[in-house]
Amino acid sequence: MSGVAERQHPRTSAENAQLALLLELAGTPKPGNVDRARDLSDLRFEHFLAGAVGSAEGLRRAESGAPVGVAFERAVRGMRHQEGGNTQFGCLLLLVPLVRAAAAGDLSPAGVTEIVESTTVADAADFYRAFEHVDVAVDDPPESMSDLDVRRGSDAVPALRARGMTLSDVMAASEGDGNAAEWRDGFAATFETAETIRADDGPVPDRIARAFVDRLADGEDSLVRTNHGPETAAEVRRRAAEARGDRAEVTELAEALVAEGINPGTTADLVCAAAFVALERGVSV
Amino acid sequence: MSGVAERQHPRTSAENAQLALLLELAGTPKPGNVDRARDLSDLRFEHFLAGAVGSAEGLRRAESGAPVGVAFERAVRGMRHQEGGNTQFGCLLLLVPLVRAAAAGDLSPAGVTEIVESTTVADAADFYRAFEHVDVAVDDPPESMSDLDVRRGSDAVPALRARGMTLSDVMAASEGDGNAAEWRDGFAATFETAETIRADDGPVPDRIARAFVDRLADGEDSLVRTNHGPETAAEVRRRAAEARGDRAEVTELAEALVAEGINPGTTADLVCAAAFVALERGVSV
Repeated sequence: MSGVAERQHPRTSAENAQLALLLELAGTPKPGNVDRARDLSDLRFEHFLAGAVGSAEGLRRAESGAPVGVAFERAVRGMRHQEGGNTQFGCLLLLVPLVRAAAAGDLSPAGVTEIVESTTVADAADFYRAFEHVDVAVDDPPESMSDLDVRRGSDAVPALRARGMTLSDVMAASEGDGNAAEWRDGFAATFETAETIRADDGPVPDRIARAFVDRLADGEDSLVRTNHGPETAAEVRRRAAEARGDRAEVTELAEALVAEGINPGTTADLVCAAAFVALERGVSV
Repeated sequence: MSGVAERQHPRTSAENAQLALLLELAGTPKPGNVDRARDLSDLRFEHFLAGAVGSAEGLRRAESGAPVGVAFERAVRGMRHQEGGNTQFGCLLLLVPLVRAAAAGDLSPAGVTEIVESTTVADAADFYRAFEHVDVAVDDPPESMSDLDVRRGSDAVPALRARGMTLSDVMAASEGDGNAAEWRDGFAATFETAETIRADDGPVPDRIARAFVDRLADGEDSLVRTNHGPETAAEVRRRAAEARGDRAEVTELAEALVAEGINPGTTADLVCAAAFVALERGVSV
C-alpha cells in the first residue's frame, strides 16, 4: 500500500501541519483533552475540526515565507471561526515556526532557532493582535511587564515598540509557559517527542496518544499549572506516571480529568508539533 | 459565542467543502462506515483525515474556477496520499461541481446543473485519469460501453474522444450509481438532505449521522448493491428503517454492518455533499 501512496502527490509542509492538528485530535485516550472518544462540556470535536480547516491558510502563508507573526495571526483568525473558542492557539504557535523551518530546508533545532531569532517587533505585534481573536489562559505578567500583558492585545503594541521587543524576546520573557519554553530551547521536547512517535509502531493516532501520556508523566503541564496551580500540576503528572502503559488506566484517567475540568492543553500542543515533525521525517499514515 | 465567530474570517467554499469531509467522518453512529467510533479492518479514521487534507488543493482549484475534471483529478490525487485506499472519491465527485456552483454564486439545483452541463470531453478524460489513483468499486458497463469502463483509466480516453462524451454524458450513462444520479438530477437528494440537516438541531455531526440513517432507510445504497447485490441492498435499507430514531439500535446496526463487511459508502458521499450545502447556507459549527 505505501508504494501506491508514495507515487501520489506528496503533502506540502502546510498540509502536514494541518494533518498534525487532526491526528493529534484523533489520538485517544489523551487524558483531559478532546479526543476521538471525548468532548469537554463546551468544547467539542467538531470545533477542533473547524479550527484545523480555518488554520490552513495561515500555515500555507508560513510555508510561503510570510513573517511568523503574519502567518500566526492569520492562522488564529481562521481557527477561531467556530463556536467552541480557543482550540489550537498553542499548537499553531509551535507549528508556524516549524513550518517556516521546514520550508527553509532545515527542520532541526538549529533551523527553527534561526527562524525564532529572526523574528521582529512586527512579529511580536501580530502575536499580540492574535490574542484579540480568542481567550487564552495565561499567567499574570510580573509587575514590571504589566504594559505587555498579552490580554491587552494590540493595545500593548506601543509598549512593545518602545521596548523594541521581538517575538523571540516576548517568548524569552514568558516564564512558566511550556510553548514559550520550546521557542527558547530550540524545540528540544518537540524534536525528542517526534523521535518517540517515529520509533513507536501501529496507527499514528495511537502513537500520538502514547506520546501524550509519556510527556504528561515526564513534565508538568503549564496550562494545568496556570489554571489550577502547581499542586494540581504535580498531581496530574503523578497520576499520568502511574497510568502510563496501561490503556485501561489511561482511559480511566482521561474520564477523570474531563470530569474534574482539568485540561493539559500544553502537552497536547507539544505532541501536535511533534506529530508534524514526525510526518515531515517520513512517518506515513 | 456565535457573535464572536461571525466577526472572524468567514470560511471559503473550498474550506466548507473540506470541513464537510471532516464533519461527515465525525458523525456517529453511521452504520457500515468509518466514523468517530468505528474503523473498518483496513480503512481507518486517520486515512480519511489525511484524505481530507490532501483533497483541499483540488477543492481550492474548483473554487478558483478550474475545469471540473482538473479540480477533481487533483483532489483525488491529493486524497490518495495515505495508505487506506479510496476514502473520499465519491464525496469529491459531488463536492467539486457544488463548489464550482457556490463560487459562481448559484448553489442551487439550477446552478449546479449549469456546471454539470458545461462539462467537456476534457473533463471526462480527467475523470477517467482519476481512476488511476485509486481502486473504486463500480459495476461492469454494458457490452456496448466496454471501451468506456472507468477502470481502464486513461486508456479509455481515445474512446471518449471518438464518441465525443462529456463528463455529463458519462454520468448520464452510469446507471445504477447513486452519485451519477445526483449529477443527472440537479443534486435533488443532496439539497433535500441539506435542508434536513439545517432543520435539525444539536451538534452538526449528530445531525449528519441522523441524516445518514434517514437516507439509508429511504433509498438503497448503490455501493452496497454493486458490492453485495440487490437483495442485500434492500435488506440494509429495511434494517436502517427499523433502527431509525433509536440511537442504541442504530449503534447496534453500525456494529453489525462493520462486522458483515457491508459499507453503504454512497449514502455517506451524499450526506457529505449535503453537509457542504448546509454549511454554505449558514449552519454553524
